[in-house]
Amino acid sequence: MILTDDQNAFAQAAREFAEGELAPHAARWDEEQIFPIEAFRKAGELGFCGLYAPESIGGLGLGRLESSLVFEEMAEVDPSTTAFLTIHNMVTWMVGTWGSEEVKSQWGELLSSGQKLGSYCLTEPGAGSDAASLRTRAERDGDDYLISGSKAFISGAGDTDLLVVMARTGGDGPKGISAFAVPADAAGITYGRKELKMGWNSQSTRGITFERVRVPASAMLGQEGEGFKLAMKGLDGGRINIACCSVGAAQGAYEAARQYMNERRQFGKNLDQFQALQFKLADILTSVVAARQMVRLAASHLDAGSSQASTYCAMAKRLATDLGFQACVDAQQLFGGYGYLKDYPVERLVRDTRVHQILEGTNEIMRVIIARQIIDLGADIR
Amino acid sequence: MILTDDQNAFAQAAREFAEGELAPHAARWDEEQIFPIEAFRKAGELGFCGLYAPESIGGLGLGRLESSLVFEEMAEVDPSTTAFLTIHNMVTWMVGTWGSEEVKSQWGELLSSGQKLGSYCLTEPGAGSDAASLRTRAERDGDDYLISGSKAFISGAGDTDLLVVMARTGGDGPKGISAFAVPADAAGITYGRKELKMGWNSQSTRGITFERVRVPASAMLGQEGEGFKLAMKGLDGGRINIACCSVGAAQGAYEAARQYMNERRQFGKNLDQFQALQFKLADILTSVVAARQMVRLAASHLDAGSSQASTYCAMAKRLATDLGFQACVDAQQLFGGYGYLKDYPVERLVRDTRVHQILEGTNEIMRVIIARQIIDLGADIR
Amino acid sequence: MILTDDQNAFAQAAREFAEGELAPHAARWDEEQIFPIEAFRKAGELGFCGLYAPESIGGLGLGRLESSLVFEEMAEVDPSTTAFLTIHNMVTWMVGTWGSEEVKSQWGELLSSGQKLGSYCLTEPGAGSDAASLRTRAERDGDDYLISGSKAFISGAGDTDLLVVMARTGGDGPKGISAFAVPADAAGITYGRKELKMGWNSQSTRGITFERVRVPASAMLGQEGEGFKLAMKGLDGGRINIACCSVGAAQGAYEAARQYMNERRQFGKNLDQFQALQFKLADILTSVVAARQMVRLAASHLDAGSSQASTYCAMAKRLATDLGFQACVDAQQLFGGYGYLKDYPVERLVRDTRVHQILEGTNEIMRVIIARQIIDLGADIR
Amino acid sequence: MILTDDQNAFAQAAREFAEGELAPHAARWDEEQIFPIEAFRKAGELGFCGLYAPESIGGLGLGRLESSLVFEEMAEVDPSTTAFLTIHNMVTWMVGTWGSEEVKSQWGELLSSGQKLGSYCLTEPGAGSDAASLRTRAERDGDDYLISGSKAFISGAGDTDLLVVMARTGGDGPKGISAFAVPADAAGITYGRKELKMGWNSQSTRGITFERVRVPASAMLGQEGEGFKLAMKGLDGGRINIACCSVGAAQGAYEAARQYMNERRQFGKNLDQFQALQFKLADILTSVVAARQMVRLAASHLDAGSSQASTYCAMAKRLATDLGFQACVDAQQLFGGYGYLKDYPVERLVRDTRVHQILEGTNEIMRVIIARQIIDLGADIR
Repeated sequence: MILTDDQNAFAQAAREFAEGELAPHAARWDEEQIFPIEAFRKAGELGFCGLYAPESIGGLGLGRLESSLVFEEMAEVDPSTTAFLTIHNMVTWMVGTWGSEEVKSQWGELLSSGQKLGSYCLTEPGAGSDAASLRTRAERDGDDYLISGSKAFISGAGDTDLLVVMARTGGDGPKGISAFAVPADAAGITYGRKELKMGWNSQSTRGITFERVRVPASAMLGQEGEGFKLAMKGLDGGRINIACCSVGAAQGAYEAARQYMNERRQFGKNLDQFQALQFKLADILTSVVAARQMVRLAASHLDAGSSQASTYCAMAKRLATDLGFQACVDAQQLFGGYGYLKDYPVERLVRDTRVHQILEGTNEIMRVIIARQIIDLGADIR
Repeated sequence: MILTDDQNAFAQAAREFAEGELAPHAARWDEEQIFPIEAFRKAGELGFCGLYAPESIGGLGLGRLESSLVFEEMAEVDPSTTAFLTIHNMVTWMVGTWGSEEVKSQWGELLSSGQKLGSYCLTEPGAGSDAASLRTRAERDGDDYLISGSKAFISGAGDTDLLVVMARTGGDGPKGISAFAVPADAAGITYGRKELKMGWNSQSTRGITFERVRVPASAMLGQEGEGFKLAMKGLDGGRINIACCSVGAAQGAYEAARQYMNERRQFGKNLDQFQALQFKLADILTSVVAARQMVRLAASHLDAGSSQASTYCAMAKRLATDLGFQACVDAQQLFGGYGYLKDYPVERLVRDTRVHQILEGTNEIMRVIIARQIIDLGADIR
Repeated sequence: MILTDDQNAFAQAAREFAEGELAPHAARWDEEQIFPIEAFRKAGELGFCGLYAPESIGGLGLGRLESSLVFEEMAEVDPSTTAFLTIHNMVTWMVGTWGSEEVKSQWGELLSSGQKLGSYCLTEPGAGSDAASLRTRAERDGDDYLISGSKAFISGAGDTDLLVVMARTGGDGPKGISAFAVPADAAGITYGRKELKMGWNSQSTRGITFERVRVPASAMLGQEGEGFKLAMKGLDGGRINIACCSVGAAQGAYEAARQYMNERRQFGKNLDQFQALQFKLADILTSVVAARQMVRLAASHLDAGSSQASTYCAMAKRLATDLGFQACVDAQQLFGGYGYLKDYPVERLVRDTRVHQILEGTNEIMRVIIARQIIDLGADIR
Repeated sequence: MILTDDQNAFAQAAREFAEGELAPHAARWDEEQIFPIEAFRKAGELGFCGLYAPESIGGLGLGRLESSLVFEEMAEVDPSTTAFLTIHNMVTWMVGTWGSEEVKSQWGELLSSGQKLGSYCLTEPGAGSDAASLRTRAERDGDDYLISGSKAFISGAGDTDLLVVMARTGGDGPKGISAFAVPADAAGITYGRKELKMGWNSQSTRGITFERVRVPASAMLGQEGEGFKLAMKGLDGGRINIACCSVGAAQGAYEAARQYMNERRQFGKNLDQFQALQFKLADILTSVVAARQMVRLAASHLDAGSSQASTYCAMAKRLATDLGFQACVDAQQLFGGYGYLKDYPVERLVRDTRVHQILEGTNEIMRVIIARQIIDLGADIR
């Protein structure tokens, strides 16, 4: 689809933010594993912390398509920081959409303005892709709930202020799960060591242990037993967001390679005058454009409330993160030896995009989701 | 992009035509190498012979996007026949857009209604992808031109009524070329033997020799020296059309594989219950959806008159024909041994889509076009 | 591995046979669907009909590695005819290795000399890859067996003289199966119509129906209940053979593309002076070399009687047939439009190699075999 | 090819060394960027520092094939450390083969025993792949040479004792280049900052500046003007070595994934019971086996002194490093989120193998080498 002028202007604002506030620091944040709280604050000032959160809590109330434009531009220079921002946006949106009045009034504006940050706590150590089998429990205790259990791979954990926690309030299976907004400093919460990762270093990743963490009943998002449904709704958007981050990073890698090829000489001519390298660059661009269209298609379906929106989100996540990583790797190759050094951003883009194929549901789980629709449910998707 | 209701209705009409008029015969037309003139007549009755030709000559005056919906549906059951129809549409559009009053009044309605059919004569034996070096000449002779030379790989040649011929009226290079509408039965035209091909058997392919073929000056399309420009404009749309044919064929192959997997049992369960095959089917669908979006993006740019429309057309043609062929091959694999037999359409779809990667400019030429824009001209495409 | 001088001389002999007896006719045999019995006779005169059959029945008693050299050379010009020859070799070897004295004396020399030809009848309509579930039965009747049931996809059926038939003599599962040598003209055998296929046109493919076909007990190959084991042993070699045919065909396609690129000019220079096409040619060659090594590794393991020979055969078949088909497709692309015409052999090589990914166990079944070894049985393969 | 018992025993010794001396430390060496001099000493005690160096200087005098077995085993647990060891072996071999008596007696045993380590200095900042255009000069000054210029991407620089330096002693082009053995602490040598890299962190990479570094004429390896030829001979072996490192790493990643899949449960069963994941694992193994055979083929050709050995080395390097990286990435994917953490070796293997596609001549240069042989020189390679 061709963007409208408004959409282009919106993307332009994000690009300027990215150039000014992210690009100069991204390499350092990666190298020194810095969680850039200040940058999130500034993003919040522009509305980027509550892009699709309801206006009632200070969000911009945009659609997923418009939101994707912002994320994509930012990811061009720093997919790791952007990816955390997308998670925070998801949390803000969940709070704004399903939070009780108490939760919304306490957290809504703080989150949408970026003064406070949120983490999304679904995954558990023993149940990566098999989210419905989670074992963290929330036991009713008078007007409160007591949450106990362990979460793993939590982005921002230790640095954020609010945790959206999926916990079991009922029996086995997805319908026994509820969602809670839990202050990150509540008594009984312990944070694990900071995980050492291949990339995504500007966001801390930690396990979290909950030991009888007390929250009021009003901390519940939505109704009892709706937690898994909410989590999955969150993930639909989350998948588009991650896919955006891959598209953006790939675009950034493409631009960097194009520029490098224009400057670097070998065998008496510029790299960009070698036909085989030209073809490679053309293929990188083509795959980025295709990935982007797929993401926007999924965002449009989500915005339109299509019955098959989840399937399009799964397809977009699978394709865009696969193509995006490969585009970064291919761009890196065009740099020759310099592509392997941290002097250029492209090696960081390779490391950062690698995890997009793995999280928010691995790309294998995406295929399970797609296959279930077309085979078991006979959906006519095209 | 998500289609409007009108667009969906339009596609539905094409689907019904395809099911009723193409599907029952496609295998036979392939096997017996039949050029289905009657089917083109019927397509003409629905307006499918002049989809984007101007209404002044009886065309529907649709955009490329809407046209692509028709071609895609038809290609689901018969890409070879559909591909010829797209070429005829290109000819009709060229005649309607750049023809003199004489040419338009003589040929316009006949072409747009499908009563007469057209071929596009650009390629020459010695200059496949290097179209600008063509050697067919058109010499001025009083009020007429005398055309002499050879064309190769002409779709429909020997079965069609009008030839749009690119010939050199001036010096070397692209600016010395003009386009002419030449009656297929004009004196001095000789048709070569019918080429034996891997597929695309429902359309004859022949070489054509022109020996001092006399046409009036009014046969010229556009101005003298504009022929190459017209040919390239034709090809932009032609590339979208061919890309559509690949998307459609791939969708057809996907649907067929899905159905086969649902019926065929092995090792005690249906094929569609084997996870590895489910994943393959999901990947086929995902690639078809991505290819389709790319085609629609290019069509939208062409409709919008974007400055980079040609580049998007080249990207769409490259990607969609590569993904489309691979989707057909992958779908064929899911049929096991039955995929190799002519009892099922999928082997025909494989053979037919193979040529889409080669013609209307090979996919290597597409990369040349893309690379020239992004490297030599510095275009900012995303 | 590097071939010895003897091995090279052997390959050279095969190459000369291929150039003299196959190359001039292969296109016509394909186009007219001719089963070239005379060519098989001539192959037999050189020993090529019993390459690894025991010398006691007139075979050459070679190893699989040496045999593979012959098949590969022949497949360079005609994979379809060569593939049938490999099937015949498998039959000859089975008869020579497990046949009773009666069967060996009656058929051994006739088969190894190519005066009579054999077909291998394992696959059934309802059980493609799931061979162990076959339903053709052989009932004991005095000193005879009465065979009843249906076979599908039988290469050479209708043109061959001896059928090696797997039939159930006992209970369900693989251990209830026995193998029989059945004269192709025995009473009660009916041949189905000749299948129309994408390629492999120089060998007929038909279904066969057996209605109480009487054979003496001495027609059994090996012992009662050993049929499936024999069939699988046959398939190990059969997989190498088919893999060879892919390697040979790919080598032929590579050579043809190299030559074409050296002759064809575009944009003022030979095709082989365009870097992107050079890279493609280099990649084709590299993949052919890799596929060949894999085949020779598997053949060496089979010759050495390695415990994991079957797994290496499965890996070789999977890899070489996938790479081989892709090499042919890529070579075809280098021909541009001419690659789609039957004027050049490459389009035939594409069609013929396609089925190698499907038969002798689909490449999906190859993965099942490999996975079973490394996962369920914990084999240490490297 | 199937290994002999001797070869297997040799590989076994390397495996034990790798398990004992590399595996326990590899993650830390990577994380803390430690150049493990002690480990190289211990490798030297087993002869692994002069595997194919002549026995006259204390080398083992093995062939490349046997050497490759050692490197491959070590690379299974630590490709970075192993890769440096291969470079050191190359230097030792060059000194032992082309060094003057002075150089050999001074350095030979020290290098082959691992008491001293060597670096290979070919690449320059302005001439990555275009080695023949190097600009470092060695000017004759009495009985000495004075070396001036800059080198880039030198493995081990700053930590090694001897530099083999290619410098221009004559005119432009490859024939003006000579090779010198230069003590790493010679006056006039300055080491640049340690490069920050994606991986290969157990070996330092630095630029080196030479300012009128004085060496005696006896420091020259081979004859004046032979330097480029020597460098290229070194690279043939170097490419096999790097390819080995990819094969080894991929094997290590495969084994790790296999084990992980056997232990990790999701959705109620072990990961290795999901068919799609089984297929992926089977494909990883198959590609590793193919890559290994290609490397051994090239090593055999180098050992045999085949005229096309360089081409086989280029093919092996291209294919094995591409397949090896992809195998590591695919194995990483099978770990899900844990694959992204430094807790498991697989993420390190991904980072380490990435550079193999880039150095010792990029894989693009490998294609140039192959293409030149088959197109410009008409070599018949198969």
